[in-house]
Amino acid sequence: MTALIVDETGAQRLVGYTIDVAQPDRCARCRLIVDDRHLNRHGVLHGGIAVMLLDNACGATASLTVDETGRTPFLTISFNTDFLAAGKPGGVTARGRIAGGGRSLKFIAAELVHDDGTLIATATGVFKRVPGLDKGGDA
Amino acid sequence: MTALIVDETGAQRLVGYTIDVAQPDRCARCRLIVDDRHLNRHGVLHGGIAVMLLDNACGATASLTVDETGRTPFLTISFNTDFLAAGKPGGVTARGRIAGGGRSLKFIAAELVHDDGTLIATATGVFKRVPGLDKGGDA
Amino acid sequence: MTALIVDETGAQRLVGYTIDVAQPDRCARCRLIVDDRHLNRHGVLHGGIAVMLLDNACGATASLTVDETGRTPFLTISFNTDFLAAGKPGGVTARGRIAGGGRSLKFIAAELVHDDGTLIATATGVFKRVPGLDKGGDA
Amino acid sequence: MTALIVDETGAQRLVGYTIDVAQPDRCARCRLIVDDRHLNRHGVLHGGIAVMLLDNACGATASLTVDETGRTPFLTISFNTDFLAAGKPGGVTARGRIAGGGRSLKFIAAELVHDDGTLIATATGVFKRVPGLDKGGDA
Repeated sequence: MTALIVDETGAQRLVGYTIDVAQPDRCARCRLIVDDRHLNRHGVLHGGIAVMLLDNACGATASLTVDETGRTPFLTISFNTDFLAAGKPGGVTARGRIAGGGRSLKFIAAELVHDDGTLIATATGVFKRVPGLDKGGDA
Repeated sequence: MTALIVDETGAQRLVGYTIDVAQPDRCARCRLIVDDRHLNRHGVLHGGIAVMLLDNACGATASLTVDETGRTPFLTISFNTDFLAAGKPGGVTARGRIAGGGRSLKFIAAELVHDDGTLIATATGVFKRVPGLDKGGDA
Repeated sequence: MTALIVDETGAQRLVGYTIDVAQPDRCARCRLIVDDRHLNRHGVLHGGIAVMLLDNACGATASLTVDETGRTPFLTISFNTDFLAAGKPGGVTARGRIAGGGRSLKFIAAELVHDDGTLIATATGVFKRVPGLDKGGDA
Repeated sequence: MTALIVDETGAQRLVGYTIDVAQPDRCARCRLIVDDRHLNRHGVLHGGIAVMLLDNACGATASLTVDETGRTPFLTISFNTDFLAAGKPGGVTARGRIAGGGRSLKFIAAELVHDDGTLIATATGVFKRVPGLDKGGDA
C-alpha cells in the first residue's frame, strides 16, 4: 500500500501536489504548499489549481472504494465548486468524502482547507468508473 | 489595448496558457498547447487544468464587459464544469460568453475545444466584481 | 408520435406544464402558463418550478436521442441551474439541447425563456439511461 | 417567532410543503409528505419537487442568519443538485446548512432525506440578500 502518491503524472509534477491514500477513513487527501507559482492576478490561489486539488482528492477517494492503492481509474463527469474564501500562500489540503452512488457512478464531495483553518472551497462531483478512456469524460 | 495576456501571474507562467482579450466579439479566449506536463494518470488533459482555462476565459470575459483590457478583477463565486470528452495533446482553446447578470454579478459560460474540433468541456460560473479581495471568493 | 405530453404524471397534473416532443430539431420543450400557484414569496416564479420545467425539457430531450416519443426513461444524475432573471406570470418555455455524451450518459443544457423574451434561467445536467430504477438517481 | 411556515405562497399551497424555521441549530427544514401528486413518470419523487424542497430549506436557512423569522428575502443565484437515490412516497425533509459566505452572498448546502433514512439528494447554492427583485435572480 502506497501512502503517498508523488510525481506520478505530468500535471502532478508541474503543480507539485501530493496525494495521500492511506488514511484510515479511506478519504484521500490532496496537499499542496501554495507559493507564487500557484497565484492568480489577485495574489491568491488560482481557482483552477484549487479545483485540481479538489478533483484529485475526489477521484482518489472514489478509487479507494474499490482499491486500497487509490489508483483504479475514475473519470470526472461533472464537477461543481464553490469558492468561499481566498487561498493564501502556505499549506492547503483537499479531502474527499463519498456522498453516495452505486457501482459505476459515485457522488463525491470535497473541502479545501488552509493550514490556518480557513475553508477555501467546497466541491461536489460525479465520477464514473471505466475500463478505458474511449467513453468520454476526464479526470 | 493588449491583445494577448502572457506570463502575468504565477499560475499562468507555471501552466503556460495565454489569454486573448482583443477579439471583436468581446469573448475572451484562453489557450494552451497541451503537452506531457498537463496530463493526468489517464494520459489526457487534467480536469483541473481544463477548469483553469475555462475559469480564466470566463473571468476575462467578465472583465471585458467593463474594461477593454480584460483586467478588471472579477472573482469566481461558483463554477460548474461538465467533462464531455478526453482532451488530447495539442492546442486547446476556452472561449467565454456572457450568459446574463447585472452590474455586480455576472453569469458566464465557456467551452473548451481542441484544435481538432472536439468539445472537451463546458462550464458555467457566477462571477462577482469586487474592489478588493477581503470579501471572499477566488479566481 | 405524440406531439404533446399532458397530464401524464402526478407532478405534471399538479403543476400543469406540457411537454412538446415533436419539434423537428428534436429538442423537447416544457411549457407552463405561470400563475399565482407557481409564485414564491417574492411574487415571481418559484425556483423549484423553474428547475422542474428545465429538468423535464432535458430529460425528454435525452429520450428523443433514442426514441421519437420522448419517453425512454433517463434519470437526472446531477443538475445545475443559474437564475438570471425573475420569472413573471405568463407563458414560459424551457427548451433542452444535447451538449454531448455517449450511449449511457448524456450532457443536456436547457434555457427557460418567458414569452416576453426574458431569459429566466439556464441549466446543465447529467442524465443516465437506465432500464430500471434500482440504480439510484431521479428524474 | 413562527415555528412553521405553511400556505404562505402559491407554490407552497400547490405542492403542500411546510418550512420549519424554529430549530435551535438555525438550520431551516422543508418537509413534504410525498404522495401521487409529486411523482414523475418513474413513480418516484420528481426531481423538480426535490429541488423545490432543497431550495426552500437553503433560502430560509440564509434568512435565519439575519432574521429569526426566516423570512428576509434571499434570492437563489445558482443551485446545483446531485440525485443520489429515488425518493419514495412518504415523509421527506430537506435541511439547510450554512457553508460560508459574507454579508451579501451566502453559500448554503442542503440534504433531502426520507423518513426511512435514505439520502435522496444533496445540493449547494449561492444565495444573495437583496432589498428588491429588480436585480435579477430568483428563489
